[in-house]
Amino acid sequence: MKKFVYSLRFTVYSLLMMPMMVWAGSVKSPNGNIELKFSVDNTGRPVYEMTYKGREVVKPSHLGLELAKDRHSSKWTNETDLMDGFTIAKEDVSTFDETWQPVWGETKDIRNHYNELAATLEQKASKRTIIIRFRVYDEGIGFRYEFPQQKELNYFIIKEERSEFAMAGDHKAWWLPGDYDTQEQVTQETKLSGIRQRFKEAVNWYNSSVAVFSETGVQTSLQMKSDDGLYINIHEAACLDYATMHLELVDTETKHLSEELMGFTNAYTPHPKATPYPLPKPFTFVSHLTPDATGLKGAMQTPCETPWRTVMVSDDARDMLSNNLILNLNEPCKIEDTSWIHPTKYCGVWWEMIVGKSSWNYTNDYPSIKLDQIDWTKVKPNGIHGANNEKVKRYIDFAAKNGLDQVLVEGWNVGWEDWANLWKRDVFDFVTPYPDFDIKMLNEYAHSKGVKLLMHHETSSSTQNYERHIKEAYELMNKYGYDAVKTGYVGDIIPRGDHHYSQSMNNHYLYVIKEAAKHHIMVNSHEATRPTGLCRTWPNLVGGESARGTEYEAFGGSNPDHTCILPFTRLQGGPMDYTPGIFETKLSEWSDNTSWARITIAGSLALYLTMYSPLQMAADLPENYERYDDAFQFIRDVACDWDQSIYLEAEPADYITVARKAKGTDNWFIGGKCDENGHQTAIKLDFLDKGRKYNCTIYADAKDAHYETNPKAYTITKKVVTAKDVLKLKEAPGGGFAVSLIAQ
Amino acid sequence: MKKFVYSLRFTVYSLLMMPMMVWAGSVKSPNGNIELKFSVDNTGRPVYEMTYKGREVVKPSHLGLELAKDRHSSKWTNETDLMDGFTIAKEDVSTFDETWQPVWGETKDIRNHYNELAATLEQKASKRTIIIRFRVYDEGIGFRYEFPQQKELNYFIIKEERSEFAMAGDHKAWWLPGDYDTQEQVTQETKLSGIRQRFKEAVNWYNSSVAVFSETGVQTSLQMKSDDGLYINIHEAACLDYATMHLELVDTETKHLSEELMGFTNAYTPHPKATPYPLPKPFTFVSHLTPDATGLKGAMQTPCETPWRTVMVSDDARDMLSNNLILNLNEPCKIEDTSWIHPTKYCGVWWEMIVGKSSWNYTNDYPSIKLDQIDWTKVKPNGIHGANNEKVKRYIDFAAKNGLDQVLVEGWNVGWEDWANLWKRDVFDFVTPYPDFDIKMLNEYAHSKGVKLLMHHETSSSTQNYERHIKEAYELMNKYGYDAVKTGYVGDIIPRGDHHYSQSMNNHYLYVIKEAAKHHIMVNSHEATRPTGLCRTWPNLVGGESARGTEYEAFGGSNPDHTCILPFTRLQGGPMDYTPGIFETKLSEWSDNTSWARITIAGSLALYLTMYSPLQMAADLPENYERYDDAFQFIRDVACDWDQSIYLEAEPADYITVARKAKGTDNWFIGGKCDENGHQTAIKLDFLDKGRKYNCTIYADAKDAHYETNPKAYTITKKVVTAKDVLKLKEAPGGGFAVSLIAQ
Repeated sequence: MKKFVYSLRFTVYSLLMMPMMVWAGSVKSPNGNIELKFSVDNTGRPVYEMTYKGREVVKPSHLGLELAKDRHSSKWTNETDLMDGFTIAKEDVSTFDETWQPVWGETKDIRNHYNELAATLEQKASKRTIIIRFRVYDEGIGFRYEFPQQKELNYFIIKEERSEFAMAGDHKAWWLPGDYDTQEQVTQETKLSGIRQRFKEAVNWYNSSVAVFSETGVQTSLQMKSDDGLYINIHEAACLDYATMHLELVDTETKHLSEELMGFTNAYTPHPKATPYPLPKPFTFVSHLTPDATGLKGAMQTPCETPWRTVMVSDDARDMLSNNLILNLNEPCKIEDTSWIHPTKYCGVWWEMIVGKSSWNYTNDYPSIKLDQIDWTKVKPNGIHGANNEKVKRYIDFAAKNGLDQVLVEGWNVGWEDWANLWKRDVFDFVTPYPDFDIKMLNEYAHSKGVKLLMHHETSSSTQNYERHIKEAYELMNKYGYDAVKTGYVGDIIPRGDHHYSQSMNNHYLYVIKEAAKHHIMVNSHEATRPTGLCRTWPNLVGGESARGTEYEAFGGSNPDHTCILPFTRLQGGPMDYTPGIFETKLSEWSDNTSWARITIAGSLALYLTMYSPLQMAADLPENYERYDDAFQFIRDVACDWDQSIYLEAEPADYITVARKAKGTDNWFIGGKCDENGHQTAIKLDFLDKGRKYNCTIYADAKDAHYETNPKAYTITKKVVTAKDVLKLKEAPGGGFAVSLIAQ
Repeated sequence: MKKFVYSLRFTVYSLLMMPMMVWAGSVKSPNGNIELKFSVDNTGRPVYEMTYKGREVVKPSHLGLELAKDRHSSKWTNETDLMDGFTIAKEDVSTFDETWQPVWGETKDIRNHYNELAATLEQKASKRTIIIRFRVYDEGIGFRYEFPQQKELNYFIIKEERSEFAMAGDHKAWWLPGDYDTQEQVTQETKLSGIRQRFKEAVNWYNSSVAVFSETGVQTSLQMKSDDGLYINIHEAACLDYATMHLELVDTETKHLSEELMGFTNAYTPHPKATPYPLPKPFTFVSHLTPDATGLKGAMQTPCETPWRTVMVSDDARDMLSNNLILNLNEPCKIEDTSWIHPTKYCGVWWEMIVGKSSWNYTNDYPSIKLDQIDWTKVKPNGIHGANNEKVKRYIDFAAKNGLDQVLVEGWNVGWEDWANLWKRDVFDFVTPYPDFDIKMLNEYAHSKGVKLLMHHETSSSTQNYERHIKEAYELMNKYGYDAVKTGYVGDIIPRGDHHYSQSMNNHYLYVIKEAAKHHIMVNSHEATRPTGLCRTWPNLVGGESARGTEYEAFGGSNPDHTCILPFTRLQGGPMDYTPGIFETKLSEWSDNTSWARITIAGSLALYLTMYSPLQMAADLPENYERYDDAFQFIRDVACDWDQSIYLEAEPADYITVARKAKGTDNWFIGGKCDENGHQTAIKLDFLDKGRKYNCTIYADAKDAHYETNPKAYTITKKVVTAKDVLKLKEAPGGGFAVSLIAQ
C-alpha cells in the first residue's frame, strides 16, 4: 500500500470550465490506457476526471451527496451536506489482481485486476470523514462513496446523490427514459443533445407503470459512442441496500416535467450547492436516485457505502461485451454450497397466455375476488385456463423428449382473477393451486420423466404480501421438488407510494434472493430492478427481466435491432430471461393476436448465444416447435454455461457475433444476430483446437429470408471443419445464424 | 324484517341550516330513549340526526366519502365521489337481541340489543349502490358504510371520509390533539369553542412522534358533556382494514397548520362538495382519516365496509362506562379454542429502565450497531443492563411468592444500543438474547416456580422487519413456553412515510394478532392504534397502551385526574395496559429521576378496579413493594376477570367508583379513584348477597394523605360487613381507595 501525500502534480483547467484544480492523486489502469485523476476544488468539492489512451472520457466532474434534515434530533437540524468543504486527509493507492471462478458464466475464469485510489476526505465543519474509492481497470473505472462509522456520522438520510459524469462531446446514446417503475420502454438512439426533444415520444404513456421524472432523465446502463469512435458505458455495480441510480443530463434548458404530466409528486429540485445552471459543460449527467414514498432517496447507517458507479470505455465495441468490470466490483459468492445451482433450459405454459390464447385466471365470473372467500370447487371455469393438468403434462412430455430441464407454469395458483394494478394487498397466497392444477401429481409426473416444474410467484408488486407468505411458499416448493422460481412485480408497489427501484425495494429483492438461497431455490426476477452484478455474490440469482422482453413481440413488437442493443445495456449487470425462441413469429397464424415478432427463425436461434444467460427458455409452443424440429435441434443442443466466450464482432444496435465453448466440453457454439439491415460475416475458426475436426451444423437465414416478409426461411448445413476454416455467413434483415461445432 | 318505502313523515328544518329535508326513515332504541332519523337532502346527500329523550345529540349531519382518482383505468378517470346524487332505494328495519359471553371481561354476560335501519342508496350517475347501516342501542348508535360487490364498484381509493357529527351546543370536551402517530398527549378539557386556542399548547412538540394535522383536529374516543348534562362520546368500533378516524371541528375559522409546523405534507384540503365554509353549524365535527405515505386514506375492495362510527349518549355518566356498545358492534370471537387465553397479573423488569436506573441496552461502546456484525461475547457491558439473569430471577422469585402469573422482561434481546427514531430497518431479530440473559435457564427457572416469562417485542416501528421475523420469533416463544407478548411501536414507521394509525398499519396490528393466535400467544400492543373493540373478535388481544401510560409519571408526570378520564376515552375500545401500582411515587428517593407520580398509594390500588384490564401489572420494583407489604396484599388479592361490574359513581376527570365481582367467586372488590380535589363517598353494599357476611378490608388514604405532599399515608381497616352496610370513605387529593370483600 503506497501512500500519496498531496501530489505535487498541478493541472490547470480552463478557468471558465471549473474552479482552479489541484490534481491531488492519479492512478492508471494496469495497461496504462485509462487514467483517473482526483482532487478537491477550491470550494472543497471532490472532482475526478478520466481519460482513455489520452482522450477525455469524463471531464472534470463533481462528486458529493445532499443529505436530508432529520426532525428528531436538534443536533441534526443543521445536517451537513456531503458536497463541499472537504480536504484530502490521505490517499491510498494499491493494486489488486486475482482470478476467480463463477458458479456459472460466460467464461470459466474471471480476472479481477485493478489499481485503486482511495481518498479519505475530511469535512472539517461537520467533523465528518468519507472515503471515495476508485478502482481503475483496463476496461473502465468504478468508484463509490464509503462512510466509516464515526462519532458524527452514524445515521443519515440521502436527499440526493450528486455524482457527475461530464461527457466530452455530443455522443450518440442508446437510452431509455429514466423511470422509477419501468424499464420496458423501447431503446432510443439519439445524440445526447437530442434526448430532450425525443423524450416525450420515447415514453410509452400507455404503460401503467410509467413514472418518469425529467425530460433529460435516462436509465443505466447507458451505452454511448463518441464521434471519434469511443464506446462509453455508464452503469452501477453492487446496488444492494441503496436506491437505483438514473442519470439526468443537466444543461441550460433543464427543467422538470410537470407533476401533472409525470403523474406523481417526486419532482426534482436543484440543490443550491449543485453545479450551477447554466452549466458550462453541455453534456454533463448528474446522478438521480429513485425515491421512496417520502421522496427521500435512502436511509443509511455507517459503516456503509454506495454502489459502485461504473464508466466502461474502449475503442473496440467488443470490449463492452467481454469485460467483467461489473461482476468484479461485486463481492465474492456468499453461498457456501452452490451444488444446487445449475444452468437451466426450460419451456413453459406462458407464451400462449401472453399471446392471449389461454388465461392465467381460472374463472371470469367475479369482478373481484377475496382469496379467503372463494370456494374454488364451486366456481365456473372460463374454459381457457392455461395451467391445467392436461396441458402441463403435454409440456412436461415435450421437455422430457427434448432434453429441457424444467417447465414453467404460470397461472397455477389462485388469485389471477383481479391481480394487476389494483393496489390489492392480499392478492396471492402462493400456495393454493387452482382446482385443475394437481400440484402433487404434476410434480411427480415431471420427476418421473427427469424434468422439474419451475415455480411462478407473481407478486403484483404487493411485496408486503409476498414477504408474509414467502416462507410457506418456499416450503411448498421444497416439499414438491421445485428448485427455481420466476418472480414478478407487475403494477404499483405495496407499500403504497414506493417505487420499483427504491432502496426499500432493492432491499426486498435481495431479501427474496437470500430467503430463496436458504431454501436452495434459484431466482429469476421479473420487473425487478435492473441488475448490477449481484449474481456474483448470490449466484442463485440466475436471471431476471428488467427490460423489454420477448413478450413485447406479442404487444406490438420490438425493433429488430433491440437484441443487438440489450447486450450493451441491460446485460451489463447480469443475465436476462429474455425468453427467446419464437418460431411462429406471425401470431395471427395461430391466434387472434395481430402482433408479430421482428425476427427470423435463424435469428431466434442466435439469441441463445448472443443473449448470454444460464437460464434459457424455449418460449414458443410445443406444436410450433414440432413443425420445425430440424431447427429446434439447435435449441436441444446448445449449452447455457460456458468455459470460454469470444466476441468476434459487435456494434451497438447493428450486430453481435460470439463464439462460446460449452462448459466442460470441447464443443463450440457460435451465434450472430443483426438488425433490420442484415449483415455479412466471415468467421475465422482459429479459436478451435489446432488439428482437430469438428462436426459443424450451420442454421442460417435462407437467401430470401426477411424478418417481416419471410421469417421462417432457414437452411441447415452440415460439414466438418477445422481451425483453419472460415465460415462466410449472410444474416437476413432482422435475422442471424447459429452454429454448433461438436469436437470429433 | 320490515321494509320502509319512503316514509311520509316530513320534518322541515330551518332553511338556513340545511337544505329542505325529507326524513325517509327513523328508528328508535329498544327503550325508546334514542331516535335516529335518516334521509337524503335535495342534492342527494345522506343526512342523519340523533336525539336522546327528545334532546338533540347529533343535529342533521351529512355522510359520504370522497374517492381518489385512479391513474390506471381511463374508466376510472372520472371516479365518482360517494358524496351526493343518492336516492334511497330501500330501507330495512330490524331488531336484534342476543346475550353473549366474553372470554374475559367486566361482566359474565353481555346483551347486544338494538334496532337497525339499513338504507340502500343508489347513485344513478355512477350506477353504484352503497348501504348505510345504523344500529340504535339504548346507549347510543353505531353506523357504517357498506359497499356491496357490484359491476361499477370493485376497487376504490378513499381520499377522505366525510362523516359529520353536528353537535347541538358548545359542549365541554376532553380531547387529545388529532395526531397520526401519537396518542400519548395530556388530555385537554375545554369547550368545543376553545379547542383552537388551546391546540398548540396541547401538543407536546418535544414528542418525536408528533404528526398533527389541524388546529381543530382531535382524537377519538372523544368524551363530551353538554351544558344541560348530557354525556356524549364519539368513537369507532371494529376498525379492521381501515384507517383510524380523527375528528375535525370545522367552522368559519378552520384553517390547517402549516407544513412547516406539522413537519409533514399530508395537509387537508376541503373538498368542493364538502359542507361549505362558513358553516351555519358552529360545532360540527367531520371525520378525518389517517393517511398512508401517499396521503391517501384507504384502498378498498368490495364487498367491504367501514368501521362503525359510534355516538354514545346518556344523562348519567356511569352509563358511559358500563355500556358495551363498542364490543357489541364487533364480530363474535373468531378463535375456536380460547382455553389458552387467560387473565394475567404480572411484574417486570421495566420500571427501573423507565426511571433510568438500569438500561435496555447491554453496551454503551458503539454509536450504532449492525446485528450481524457484532460478537456480543466480546462486547464490553455497560454494567447497568436490566435484563440480566440475576435480576430476572429476583423478579421471578417475587412473582412466585406473591401469586403473580408472569414476569415481563424488556431489553432481553440484542439491538437496544440504537433502536429508536433512526429509521433503522433491521433493528431487532427478536430471537437473540444478550449474553447475560440465559433464555432457556430463566424460562425453566420460572416454570419450576409456577411463573411464566412475558415476552417483549419492541419493533421500533420497523414493521417490515417485525413481519420478516415474526414466525421465528413466535416459534421461539412456543419453544420456551412464553404465552404472551408485549409489542411496541416507538418511532417512525418503516415502510417510511407511513403513519401509526393508517389503514396499512391497522392491517399490520391485526396481522400480528392473527399470527399470535396461531401460536397461542396473547398480545399486549404498545403505541399501536387505539382499540375499537377488536378484543371481542380476537380475545388474545388482552391489552394495549395507545394512551399516556404510567411511564409518563417518570417523564414529568401526568395530572391526578388523568386516570379519571381514561375510562371515558381510551378504555372505550378495550383494556389498557396502564401498568399501575407505583408505591414509591417520589422517584428521586430511590433514583436520579426527579419526576414523581401524581397519586397516593391507596389511589394506585384503586386503579386495579377503575382501569379495567384482564392484564394488570404490579409495576413498581419488588423492593419498593416489600416496604409496604400490607398494602401490596390488595394487589395479591385483587382479581382481573369479573362476573359483574357496577359503576357506583362517575364523573369525567373527577371520580370513578366501581364494584366488581371476581370471576367464578362470591367475592367483590371496590375501587374509587379521584382527581386533585379529593372525593367523599358513601357506598351502599346492597349489591352483596343478602344476609351473607363478608370479610372486608379497606385500603384508604390516611386523613392527611395527598398525592404530592403525603402520598404514602394509607390506612388498612378490616371488618365484617353485610349488604345492609354503607362504607363512608374519603379519598385524598389525587387519591382513592380499594376494598376487598371476601364472602364468608
